[in-house]
Amino acid sequence: MKKIGFIGLGNMGGPMAVNLVKAGYVVTAFDLVESALEQFVEQGGQRAPSAADAVSDADAVVSMLPASKHVEALYLGDEGLLSAIQPGTLVIDSSTIAPESAKKVAAAAESAGVPMIDAPVSGGVGGAIAGTLTFIVGGEEAALTSAKPLLEVMGKNIFHAGAAGAGQVAKICNNMLLSVLMTGTAEALQLGVNNGLDPAVLSEVMRKSSGGNWALEVYNPYPGVMENVPSSNAYQGGFLVDLMVKDLGLAMESALATQSSTPMGSLTRSLYLAHSKKGHGGIDFSSIQTYFQSSDKS
Amino acid sequence: MKKIGFIGLGNMGGPMAVNLVKAGYVVTAFDLVESALEQFVEQGGQRAPSAADAVSDADAVVSMLPASKHVEALYLGDEGLLSAIQPGTLVIDSSTIAPESAKKVAAAAESAGVPMIDAPVSGGVGGAIAGTLTFIVGGEEAALTSAKPLLEVMGKNIFHAGAAGAGQVAKICNNMLLSVLMTGTAEALQLGVNNGLDPAVLSEVMRKSSGGNWALEVYNPYPGVMENVPSSNAYQGGFLVDLMVKDLGLAMESALATQSSTPMGSLTRSLYLAHSKKGHGGIDFSSIQTYFQSSDKS
Amino acid sequence: MKKIGFIGLGNMGGPMAVNLVKAGYVVTAFDLVESALEQFVEQGGQRAPSAADAVSDADAVVSMLPASKHVEALYLGDEGLLSAIQPGTLVIDSSTIAPESAKKVAAAAESAGVPMIDAPVSGGVGGAIAGTLTFIVGGEEAALTSAKPLLEVMGKNIFHAGAAGAGQVAKICNNMLLSVLMTGTAEALQLGVNNGLDPAVLSEVMRKSSGGNWALEVYNPYPGVMENVPSSNAYQGGFLVDLMVKDLGLAMESALATQSSTPMGSLTRSLYLAHSKKGHGGIDFSSIQTYFQSSDKS
Amino acid sequence: MKKIGFIGLGNMGGPMAVNLVKAGYVVTAFDLVESALEQFVEQGGQRAPSAADAVSDADAVVSMLPASKHVEALYLGDEGLLSAIQPGTLVIDSSTIAPESAKKVAAAAESAGVPMIDAPVSGGVGGAIAGTLTFIVGGEEAALTSAKPLLEVMGKNIFHAGAAGAGQVAKICNNMLLSVLMTGTAEALQLGVNNGLDPAVLSEVMRKSSGGNWALEVYNPYPGVMENVPSSNAYQGGFLVDLMVKDLGLAMESALATQSSTPMGSLTRSLYLAHSKKGHGGIDFSSIQTYFQSSDKS
Repeated sequence: MKKIGFIGLGNMGGPMAVNLVKAGYVVTAFDLVESALEQFVEQGGQRAPSAADAVSDADAVVSMLPASKHVEALYLGDEGLLSAIQPGTLVIDSSTIAPESAKKVAAAAESAGVPMIDAPVSGGVGGAIAGTLTFIVGGEEAALTSAKPLLEVMGKNIFHAGAAGAGQVAKICNNMLLSVLMTGTAEALQLGVNNGLDPAVLSEVMRKSSGGNWALEVYNPYPGVMENVPSSNAYQGGFLVDLMVKDLGLAMESALATQSSTPMGSLTRSLYLAHSKKGHGGIDFSSIQTYFQSSDKS
Repeated sequence: MKKIGFIGLGNMGGPMAVNLVKAGYVVTAFDLVESALEQFVEQGGQRAPSAADAVSDADAVVSMLPASKHVEALYLGDEGLLSAIQPGTLVIDSSTIAPESAKKVAAAAESAGVPMIDAPVSGGVGGAIAGTLTFIVGGEEAALTSAKPLLEVMGKNIFHAGAAGAGQVAKICNNMLLSVLMTGTAEALQLGVNNGLDPAVLSEVMRKSSGGNWALEVYNPYPGVMENVPSSNAYQGGFLVDLMVKDLGLAMESALATQSSTPMGSLTRSLYLAHSKKGHGGIDFSSIQTYFQSSDKS
Repeated sequence: MKKIGFIGLGNMGGPMAVNLVKAGYVVTAFDLVESALEQFVEQGGQRAPSAADAVSDADAVVSMLPASKHVEALYLGDEGLLSAIQPGTLVIDSSTIAPESAKKVAAAAESAGVPMIDAPVSGGVGGAIAGTLTFIVGGEEAALTSAKPLLEVMGKNIFHAGAAGAGQVAKICNNMLLSVLMTGTAEALQLGVNNGLDPAVLSEVMRKSSGGNWALEVYNPYPGVMENVPSSNAYQGGFLVDLMVKDLGLAMESALATQSSTPMGSLTRSLYLAHSKKGHGGIDFSSIQTYFQSSDKS
Repeated sequence: MKKIGFIGLGNMGGPMAVNLVKAGYVVTAFDLVESALEQFVEQGGQRAPSAADAVSDADAVVSMLPASKHVEALYLGDEGLLSAIQPGTLVIDSSTIAPESAKKVAAAAESAGVPMIDAPVSGGVGGAIAGTLTFIVGGEEAALTSAKPLLEVMGKNIFHAGAAGAGQVAKICNNMLLSVLMTGTAEALQLGVNNGLDPAVLSEVMRKSSGGNWALEVYNPYPGVMENVPSSNAYQGGFLVDLMVKDLGLAMESALATQSSTPMGSLTRSLYLAHSKKGHGGIDFSSIQTYFQSSDKS
């Protein structure tokens, strides 16, 4: 397995494809944005004039697109990629999309004799560049086994969540929980500060107690408590509020489709969306801390 | 410091006092419940006919009472214990009460020349018996230093959260956050299960990802995922729903007193209270998992 | 306009079609349920062997189906009804469906030269039988004018909410608000009762004050306050909890599609769904009152 | 009953006292603010050098103070007004305070032989000036009967909610419900607008349907829909956000004291408080509409 077709050279896909090039794979990519293709060629990649051309000769295909509709449009239909891909060619879709879409595309792939996994990632642009992403995979064990050499080039942790679509479900559940614990941590820290506590001391107490969670461990939302996190850099970079809103939207869709009651996740979606509407969509999601604070200007 | 006066031999206070006895202290206790006193004497303790008698001769005083009003009634007023305690005697109040009450009693203690700390605990009855409680302390550094030998007999971890009342604030913040992450974890697990995922697999994925938190680490709420936790024992024992409701009530009081916005903590209080009203007040708080599930009988 | 094709003889559609028969129209109906067709014939209606047969000769078509997918399947596609209906024939869809679906079908109708309105109703089975429904209409003014004689046979109030799909949007917004004011009223009444107030007295005070709303006016959720409402009849009949859950699902879909923040509506969806999961899906939605009450058995 | 002692000449108390003067009563007032006393004298009132002097000779006493602590401080204690008031003198407290405080003061009044009612108002500064306030009364029927001539001078509607404290409870419940229906109405209108509906048309549809409520009737939160309401005047005047936050705080206290689950009221408190923290505490509470809207500057 030497030749890879890669579709989607955005903020995440670009560095992922480059890491495959660096590992010695021959990667032929397609993207609608000309400059992304040019940059990829400069970094040692090949470019193709269309998605079909990028995959026609490939041993494996990787795609990284913004949303369900792009993935469905890419693979399905009379002119979809599943018609162009050779049966038996491994397909890895790393886009974060609705589980229903992932299942639909996977079913079509199965009909076409194409082994496919959904493998959404966490870890952000930094993880994509460093090759330390986490992949949460749905699909057959055999397909995952074939995919592992590629995934291990682009990431550090690989979880097998279950059958087709399960990668998407697990990512959605995780990110919904992340929104809840981040918002809950921000709220608890603010309550402490409003009572006169030092946020660093309170963070340390809760981190080692039953309030312990990922945010207190590595991503404290209160400015000045932790170095090298977005909260200590005016919430620049990181995982953007509007991306969290997008993922919470996927969670709500999934809750509607399965008649699931999600009071906490629904509330964080409303809070994050209100936060975004006040002009904070383009900063890190730990900025929900400021939602709880008095402000002269926002 | 050999002689300890101990007030309050309940589910928590009883084993805490016994651990002091076992460590070689002479502990004279008072409680309103005759049988608690008898049991304490059987385990090597002394009993006193009143709270004042229990502390009159003591080098240090420990109290463990249900609520703010009991602590205020014990220490304050013309016949309060602060009149009976010798100036300079160390006082440790381990009750979980309102920060405002803790500050009020601490101020009165200071006026009476009595060094006092608020030192609420976490760890439950199991931790009280095993001597592995966590103490979250508010008060002067010097008083905490004097208290440490006693706290180390009764517990394993000691955190200094700040000035008088800060122990209560930190505990309240921690437990509010705990209620949020437990409810959020239960909700996320249920969403995954409703989508066909295995709760054990999903738990493991989220535990190692950005959804990681104390509940996934040591107290998984989904039955069968983890051994030796309440969820795998029909939610018997553990930290009772009604105690969480009590602590969330203290958090809400504190939020009101400090004009703090607590959408997440307010919501979990409403959910836990609704859960309690349907007959679940006396089981473990991780049973909030069942709130998200269909039920024939409740 | 004498001949009507009617698709969907369910709990709502059945009596609506019968009212058209009583008003002198020749109504030819189709339904997948044989007994519904037999009953309709007994009440003076005509039956057709298929939906296409029901409408082939009609001056106007009325449909009343459960959900978006049924409406889309009925009208769209190569074998859809829009191919069978004569251009110029008025179509009234009274189903409650997603605005996006309503717009899609309306656009297809326009292409086929078929004037169409979306006209979801409120008023329940009782209103359908009595011919006192409220129609909330989206579509062209001209189409609404043609439809009025029919709508006035089946209902009492007709609102024109805007262009195609606007009837669905307005109904969804109204029912989301209804869920909020019903739940808020129940919560406020319970808080008063828990403080010792008489629910009838409190209801009257709030009804005449700034808390006044439809629930206090005609549909009080507290048992015994008002006669002839579901709360005084063990919450039997009325507007079922599961139908409110369905409508709140449509509201959430619409909120997702338009990036709308809906903290209140999201919360009531979660509460109503939790209420349903405990076995209350088949009783009136004012039973949310019991969510706030202690219960031995549920 | 000709001579009235009046305590508290604030924004509400000032015009209430003036209306009593205009009706022919001899009103002797006390306030801590000198300018309020001077203005009152200009409008025909008498001033007293202390609260005790204001009531020593009175046939009836009216008080209008900011919060529980002020009312308790005024009436209770060795130097409290209940010691200065002649037994049998009617006392009307129109402050909005905690029911627990109202009951405590009423019990002390009863012990002192002083008939007392709690009579909080709604209607705002406009209603106070116009003499069109609504009084919600708790206390004995006989005391209310004596009070009616005075209340009818200052207000238009009088409700008897129950025993001592019931006036406060009913007002708190009403205002909690008001916050819920105002927020729910704003959210529903925004969802409609985001879907392309005209807010005026949607308001009219919901007003006449099951979403009908006081906000849609007389206090529409969407700018431009209704004339002469705060939303059409940049949310100036009206009932301030921070006063709603205060009343919701009383509701939460009462919910805590009675173990009541209030998910909706808790959520609106959090939303209103967040709204206030972003600089909107001093504008009308219907401005919660803007919480749901995109904003360049806030």
